[in-house]
Amino acid sequence: MEFSFYLGMIAAVITTVAFLPQVIKAHKTKKTGDLSLLMYVLFTIGVGLWAIYGAIIGSWPVLLSNIIIFALNLYILFLKIKHG
Amino acid sequence: MEFSFYLGMIAAVITTVAFLPQVIKAHKTKKTGDLSLLMYVLFTIGVGLWAIYGAIIGSWPVLLSNIIIFALNLYILFLKIKHG
Repeated sequence: MEFSFYLGMIAAVITTVAFLPQVIKAHKTKKTGDLSLLMYVLFTIGVGLWAIYGAIIGSWPVLLSNIIIFALNLYILFLKIKHG
Repeated sequence: MEFSFYLGMIAAVITTVAFLPQVIKAHKTKKTGDLSLLMYVLFTIGVGLWAIYGAIIGSWPVLLSNIIIFALNLYILFLKIKHG
């Protein structure tokens, strides 16, 4: 495997797990007032499209990482709508 | 151009502009208490690596979108560190 492959994999893992601390924080504190609703609406739609893009071009890293990011962002969005 | 190309471009634009509302909100309100510091540290590092990955594989959409996302996240991170 080439260096770029490993770099892409590391980048995919880091940008995926990055949303976990925000999920845990929002879930625990039930405070989402400082989060931007529009950011999470747009970002959830965007990563959903990235996942479809990954499926079409046959890229498992793009597909899998974006499915996980999509799910995490959907939950943050749910908490934001719930708690305001 | 293929359908997948346009889908990728639309996904890139949406996930890039998604951070603008959060930047504007945090900048205006000076309130970042509900944002996860760890999320923005990890995500900023991650998209920085995505930008390098884009440069290595010669993908302008990956490179450009991640440079912009990197800059926007770096500013949110700066506001988070400043305002707590």
